[in-house]
Amino acid sequence: MCQLMGMSANVPTDICFSFTGLIQRGGVTGPHRDGWGIAFYEGRGCRFFHDQYAGCESQIAGLVKEFPIKSHIVISHIRKANRGRICLENTHPFVRELWGCYWSFAHNGQLKGIKKKSLTHYHPVGSTDSEYAFCWMLDQIKDKFPKKPESKVKLKGFINQLSDQLAERGIFNMLLSDSVYLYTYCSTKLCWITRKAPFGEAELKDVEMKVNFCHQTTPKDIVSVVATEQLTNNEKWVQMSKGDFLVFKNGLSTV
Amino acid sequence: MCQLMGMSANVPTDICFSFTGLIQRGGVTGPHRDGWGIAFYEGRGCRFFHDQYAGCESQIAGLVKEFPIKSHIVISHIRKANRGRICLENTHPFVRELWGCYWSFAHNGQLKGIKKKSLTHYHPVGSTDSEYAFCWMLDQIKDKFPKKPESKVKLKGFINQLSDQLAERGIFNMLLSDSVYLYTYCSTKLCWITRKAPFGEAELKDVEMKVNFCHQTTPKDIVSVVATEQLTNNEKWVQMSKGDFLVFKNGLSTV
Repeated sequence: MCQLMGMSANVPTDICFSFTGLIQRGGVTGPHRDGWGIAFYEGRGCRFFHDQYAGCESQIAGLVKEFPIKSHIVISHIRKANRGRICLENTHPFVRELWGCYWSFAHNGQLKGIKKKSLTHYHPVGSTDSEYAFCWMLDQIKDKFPKKPESKVKLKGFINQLSDQLAERGIFNMLLSDSVYLYTYCSTKLCWITRKAPFGEAELKDVEMKVNFCHQTTPKDIVSVVATEQLTNNEKWVQMSKGDFLVFKNGLSTV
Repeated sequence: MCQLMGMSANVPTDICFSFTGLIQRGGVTGPHRDGWGIAFYEGRGCRFFHDQYAGCESQIAGLVKEFPIKSHIVISHIRKANRGRICLENTHPFVRELWGCYWSFAHNGQLKGIKKKSLTHYHPVGSTDSEYAFCWMLDQIKDKFPKKPESKVKLKGFINQLSDQLAERGIFNMLLSDSVYLYTYCSTKLCWITRKAPFGEAELKDVEMKVNFCHQTTPKDIVSVVATEQLTNNEKWVQMSKGDFLVFKNGLSTV
């Protein structure tokens, strides 16, 4: 099983603190040594860092940990390979363009028989179930909405429906973004927290590190973090249940 | 005008030396301060680094300069904005998936009226002529070859034809790759060099730095580098002419 982490914020926010905790699970506090990746949205643009090496040993992960890239949406993943060999093209998050937006996707789980589904518009580059499922989801979305739908509610409902269908095939914990929304789906394990004023101190679970968010924020800041397992041990994270679908925008959950 | 650099090699090769010269043009020896980007292919996978900041001041560029990422195809670009504001989504190289391969593209020039062409499968995320032209090229390729063509010759011929059409609209110096081939087109300015045994010493033009490739290579290695302006001043680069189209594979030009 892999580990997911996502962020949604109403102001460009760095994820150094949370990423420092997560990446420890890539070979130190967890066995997720088979690659890692992270996507940072900045406006409509997106930066990706990927590596097929263990996060704890990766020089690029070192840069990401220390360099405060400010972003309003982040999706990150550390991999313990089950389907698909260890190589760059099999590291999450995956990215494709739809309606002139970069969509990115990270997944934790396995999906039985997913590769029997036919694909039209999008095709996987690597050999994971996850990338195949992502291509299938975007295929379905593009077929149903050839142009960007005006109704956000219909789109959310449809993504929820596709997620339910995928979850029937096994385990489907997912983070997905189109650069504005962070869509999250829990099939077995996902939790989240929203931090806003008054900000306090947080202490990482996986490595000795504390931060007092009130020194780094303004009273208007709102930041939500989603993760497979909670990243801090002195805060109250909300556990999601099987079938829960939450959509974040500007730091707040909207569904 | 921007600056392009590409590499094709028959063994995974790092581009640190050439990139060190190129990135100087991003604010030191050249005025290309409006962002930069680089794509490294490793097998079917691809790593991207982008920044909307001047290459000479970018921390991420510092990492790329020093960290020897081994790759068989590289495409890099440093930007002097003319069309499209300075932001992450307007930095080259751009990437899209076609036939389960990552295609990446970098361009130097302007293309009059390009945005009047209609698009079907691919849409730009940013506002540059370049990304629009890339989407149009992939659209045309996908329409003509819904599946990956067995004939490489037909595909090359078609890409050449599309490049000729684009060059009629202005300036179109281009690097394009599908993870196996490096397609290059010269409309006004592009040159290249192939390095193979016996390897010798090379001296950068933009910064005081020398390397003796015989210490870093085996006698079987073949590496070609393509650039807007030659990167070294003691080697003989081949200047391409208006309308020249060259395709590199495993370090050698094949057309």
